[in-house]
Amino acid sequence: MKKFINDPADVVREAHAGLAAAHPELRVNLDEQFVARADAPRPGKVGLISGGGSGHEPLHAGFVGPGMLDAACPGEVFTSPVPDQILAATKAADAGAGVVHVVKNYTGDVMNFQLAAELADEEGLRVQTVLVDDDVAVEDSTWTAGRRGTGATLLVEKIAGALAEEGADLDAVAAVARLVNERSASFAVALTACTTPAAGKPGFDLAADEIEVGVGIHGEPGRSRQKMRPAREIAALVVDAVQSAKPIGPEPLIVMVNGLGGTPQMELYLMFGEISRLLHDAGAQIARSLVGNYVTSLDMAGMSLTVCRADDELLRLWDAPVHTPALRWGA
Amino acid sequence: MKKFINDPADVVREAHAGLAAAHPELRVNLDEQFVARADAPRPGKVGLISGGGSGHEPLHAGFVGPGMLDAACPGEVFTSPVPDQILAATKAADAGAGVVHVVKNYTGDVMNFQLAAELADEEGLRVQTVLVDDDVAVEDSTWTAGRRGTGATLLVEKIAGALAEEGADLDAVAAVARLVNERSASFAVALTACTTPAAGKPGFDLAADEIEVGVGIHGEPGRSRQKMRPAREIAALVVDAVQSAKPIGPEPLIVMVNGLGGTPQMELYLMFGEISRLLHDAGAQIARSLVGNYVTSLDMAGMSLTVCRADDELLRLWDAPVHTPALRWGA
Repeated sequence: MKKFINDPADVVREAHAGLAAAHPELRVNLDEQFVARADAPRPGKVGLISGGGSGHEPLHAGFVGPGMLDAACPGEVFTSPVPDQILAATKAADAGAGVVHVVKNYTGDVMNFQLAAELADEEGLRVQTVLVDDDVAVEDSTWTAGRRGTGATLLVEKIAGALAEEGADLDAVAAVARLVNERSASFAVALTACTTPAAGKPGFDLAADEIEVGVGIHGEPGRSRQKMRPAREIAALVVDAVQSAKPIGPEPLIVMVNGLGGTPQMELYLMFGEISRLLHDAGAQIARSLVGNYVTSLDMAGMSLTVCRADDELLRLWDAPVHTPALRWGA
Repeated sequence: MKKFINDPADVVREAHAGLAAAHPELRVNLDEQFVARADAPRPGKVGLISGGGSGHEPLHAGFVGPGMLDAACPGEVFTSPVPDQILAATKAADAGAGVVHVVKNYTGDVMNFQLAAELADEEGLRVQTVLVDDDVAVEDSTWTAGRRGTGATLLVEKIAGALAEEGADLDAVAAVARLVNERSASFAVALTACTTPAAGKPGFDLAADEIEVGVGIHGEPGRSRQKMRPAREIAALVVDAVQSAKPIGPEPLIVMVNGLGGTPQMELYLMFGEISRLLHDAGAQIARSLVGNYVTSLDMAGMSLTVCRADDELLRLWDAPVHTPALRWGA
């Protein structure tokens, strides 16, 4: 294993130190292990936080800032944040108007966010939890009861973040977050496994001519292992999977082609071209698009597609200004 | 080789088709092979174009847009664009006020941009050429007479792009581009080689415990092959190399920690933390920072450091609004 690290045990903490050095507009709390907007909590504003295992950067700390998250609590690599850490991030985001927890559907995350929400409740904070479970590949998975939460997390955080920024109340922010999740579907394909710093070797074996179809963002098994094939055939697989699970109608779509960490941008754009052609041929209307590494799996070569059936209001919130390390426009 | 491609011969063209689908604010000319701002040429504005081999995305097409490049002409993977293609991009950017060519110092690029400038001159266009040669690793290289052009290209394009957007004349835009290049130094380390679609195998052999110190963005040999070591020691190597070649004084610095394509963002931030600590200890002042994949080498695992000794005016131009696929703020 060759990685730019010192000791595997210090990777997350040292990466956070780098994040703090690079982004003075964030407040990185190395002791309590959360990252917040420097100006959080904002008086009167509903707080929006998220968290989960590290290794999916820029998710979540890269999405902290005006128009998106108030705080993020990253756990160790592929490991849920602990309840006290989530509680600390919740308090950092709370200005009395309540806090929405955006939780990807993994067993550890769900449990620890629930415990944190109970602790917050005991302290008189109002918390609403929004579960993200957009990955249509499998019904249950290694670390999951129900569908996994993946790429749609970005869309949930962006759109709910925009509504919170406008001053909407707790119920409204949670409701739009749930709506985005319901209207989103994701599906991923891996060309290689990823290597965690602690393990030091790839998380699973994949032959030189094989791909994992429907892979999870921790390298969890997908639907099938198949032979490598041209990009246009992989694009068809991915679009079919999304279409079958959540049929795409005439709604304007937000489409994200996301790199899992080790795939060159050239290939992501090539895949976006194939996917957009297939969607157009199916009568779909791509209203907004995003191509890049946003919800990653360390150094895994692979890509995921996320499609959200939007409407005018969701597009308006998507377009609203955002100023975070990884997503920034209009500000 | 597993890549999201169809035929290696079609990769660049198909990636451009995807770029066009994802970015309606760009005009992608698939026949003449250039990418331009949809509103280019802008009356009265000096044009700014760049180009070079593909495989370094988002460089250069990802930097086309208001506040940065008017057009980019990407060649095939690791291959210079041809003179006619550069001429077409030059014309697309020309509004009568002249065009600046930003050329990374590689033999093929230098020759073809020179031929294109001569063709443009014959047609009555005014062109000024700015050579970028910031990579301090080696004096001459496989594909280069003199130092290679790498990470500083982004800084040159951003800062000259901002000045051009303000309405500065041809000489002034070329002058600030040259100034940024002179004041910048870069140095890269590779953990793995990259694989071009055409070759189908890694461009060089690197043992499981070895790193290439001073590597070029095409995988050209660097200064030495060394044993893998902790991030803090690699950071020291990189900072020393930059410091020795272009000593850092009291000026405010723009610091970029750039991923070469296959390195997770977590490791880039960890490296930024190490590098910023070393720079602070040396009395340097980091005024602006950028961490991410900007000047890449396909799927190569590795990173580069670029340091630019700025001043108030260069920082002002750096902060100016920019709206491109890969770099966007204030717009």
